Amino acid sequence: MPELRRDPVIGRWVIISTERAKRPDQFSASSVEKEALAPGEKCPFCEGNESMTPPEIYALRKPGTRPNGPGWEVRVIPSISPLLQIEGNLDRHGHGMYDLMNAKGAHEIVIDTPQHLRESQISQDHIAKSVNVIVDRIQDLQNDPSIKYALIFKNYGQAAGGGHIKHSRLQIIGTPVNLKRVKEELAGAKRFFDYKDRCIFCDIIKQEIQAQKRIVAESKYFIAIAPFASRFPFETWIMPKEHACDFYRMDRNRIPDFAKAVTLVFGKTRKVIGDFPFNFVSHTAPFRRDAGKKGYWETIERDYHWHFEILPILTRVAGFEWGSGFYINPLPPEDACKSVREAAL
Amino acid sequence: MPELRRDPVIGRWVIISTERAKRPDQFSASSVEKEALAPGEKCPFCEGNESMTPPEIYALRKPGTRPNGPGWEVRVIPSISPLLQIEGNLDRHGHGMYDLMNAKGAHEIVIDTPQHLRESQISQDHIAKSVNVIVDRIQDLQNDPSIKYALIFKNYGQAAGGGHIKHSRLQIIGTPVNLKRVKEELAGAKRFFDYKDRCIFCDIIKQEIQAQKRIVAESKYFIAIAPFASRFPFETWIMPKEHACDFYRMDRNRIPDFAKAVTLVFGKTRKVIGDFPFNFVSHTAPFRRDAGKKGYWETIERDYHWHFEILPILTRVAGFEWGSGFYINPLPPEDACKSVREAAL
Repeated sequence: MPELRRDPVIGRWVIISTERAKRPDQFSASSVEKEALAPGEKCPFCEGNESMTPPEIYALRKPGTRPNGPGWEVRVIPSISPLLQIEGNLDRHGHGMYDLMNAKGAHEIVIDTPQHLRESQISQDHIAKSVNVIVDRIQDLQNDPSIKYALIFKNYGQAAGGGHIKHSRLQIIGTPVNLKRVKEELAGAKRFFDYKDRCIFCDIIKQEIQAQKRIVAESKYFIAIAPFASRFPFETWIMPKEHACDFYRMDRNRIPDFAKAVTLVFGKTRKVIGDFPFNFVSHTAPFRRDAGKKGYWETIERDYHWHFEILPILTRVAGFEWGSGFYINPLPPEDACKSVREAAL
Repeated sequence: MPELRRDPVIGRWVIISTERAKRPDQFSASSVEKEALAPGEKCPFCEGNESMTPPEIYALRKPGTRPNGPGWEVRVIPSISPLLQIEGNLDRHGHGMYDLMNAKGAHEIVIDTPQHLRESQISQDHIAKSVNVIVDRIQDLQNDPSIKYALIFKNYGQAAGGGHIKHSRLQIIGTPVNLKRVKEELAGAKRFFDYKDRCIFCDIIKQEIQAQKRIVAESKYFIAIAPFASRFPFETWIMPKEHACDFYRMDRNRIPDFAKAVTLVFGKTRKVIGDFPFNFVSHTAPFRRDAGKKGYWETIERDYHWHFEILPILTRVAGFEWGSGFYINPLPPEDACKSVREAAL
């Protein structure tokens, strides 16, 4: 079973992933990752190859089609090499001064198109269908009391860790602990709220609407901004204009409009830099916030604001960033924003 | 002038680097980074090509040789594309709810060999010379009241951001703010000290000596361990066995022994995985800790313990890590340690 280990100094959790394990001598720097499917190798995520994957957890299917056969539009399966496993106990324990637990949790793959398409070929309508499926899955995971947080992400392209099977897919990870980055955001949002009695993200949206310098695109209910302290060239955050802390509780009627905002941002960015490697990552509030809890749990519904981050991987993160948590971005977000906003679709 | 911008939610600083700026349309994902010097292109860091760089700040030279000519062993120059600049004012200011300042600070390149060598060809004796030069430079930077922190790092290999001029070099960055990662470590170390009245790093060393499962190598004064919650395969920390918070105040007589520990770790790791891309990053206490200061400044001399981290870049960091601050390591540190420790040099 994979293990979750906690750094005793800064509290960072690491998954020691036995499912993806290799022997020490298999890590030679010259053993380049596989870049693509070998000739003749079949893609396990394409329609018609359902038997190559574990049985599906859920699928959006055409009427009359059967599970684990063709006829689906969005298909959810367990990961073949899960980072966290749904069976077993958490078994939190210490080991001298160290803390560890079994890596219990969920790891699901959302295959968001039955065809082997380029990212840019997936339609807005189809994106809305995938978002609906993801919301269904998160609502289901929320019922598992051992899962504290669900992270949704897509890795696209080799540089972004997209893997050698180049079939579009999202991933959902349900973790038994709250994640460092999420806790930092919750703490920062609460600090601001305690001082100003307002949501910091709502304030950011207001200031950006006034400044008109970092708004990449807008739909009726969503706004996409190039954050003031962007870490990456063309970094973009998509946020609901109305305050809300839970992505998965979004009004379903607004999902097509969310898909529109996503399509606008990716489409316009591709007009400027072409098809680009990226990580697309959700930031949403944790599950199970008892009203009685102290700390950032007390005001989370009022101070936290869900959003998705698009992180294009066009530069390399090097020692300085690892050592310092301090990023270098060679492109002012205002310049990135101007070129993307003006791109005609 | 480059700008330092602060993320309003989590307080992360980002350098918007005008010196390395490109136009938005120059970021095309297909514009591959230069992999090596072009045929006939001269290396600006090789002995004999001193006129290709800005004038040297400092050099360890053979007697009778002149600045900015050949005859040096270690040479320090300002960066050609500095991330922070020594001139000008900090000019901290707000912009609505955002905070920013000029990226004032130091960015120096320590060319640690006059020849165009592979990393593995640099001798232990020569590493000791470079460390002496670095200590000299940090002691000098410490005199500049606008510099709060000095970070030392080496990026080696393309995957680690080593750049296309494949001449070995270290970098020193002097920053006008304390870095997020450093603050987190200081806060974690203080939390432990307040509870136990002991240095957490000293306790880690003691537990590791008892367990004998994660000690990669030892010299007389230094110990190299594979950290319990390693983020990367073959991650290794080199620490002084005796408690000390400032790298640059190390007893000069111990520098050859530090060079020995460094040589042992890199040499043995190379026996297992060959020449590997890595980031080598210092973790040392900030400058200017007035005794009167509250918070983690009060006990820093007793609770913080300097060390260097070796981060081999053999896997890709993807969306999950960016979104969560949660790492995935496919190799248990005990296995990595065993293979490296047993490697014969």
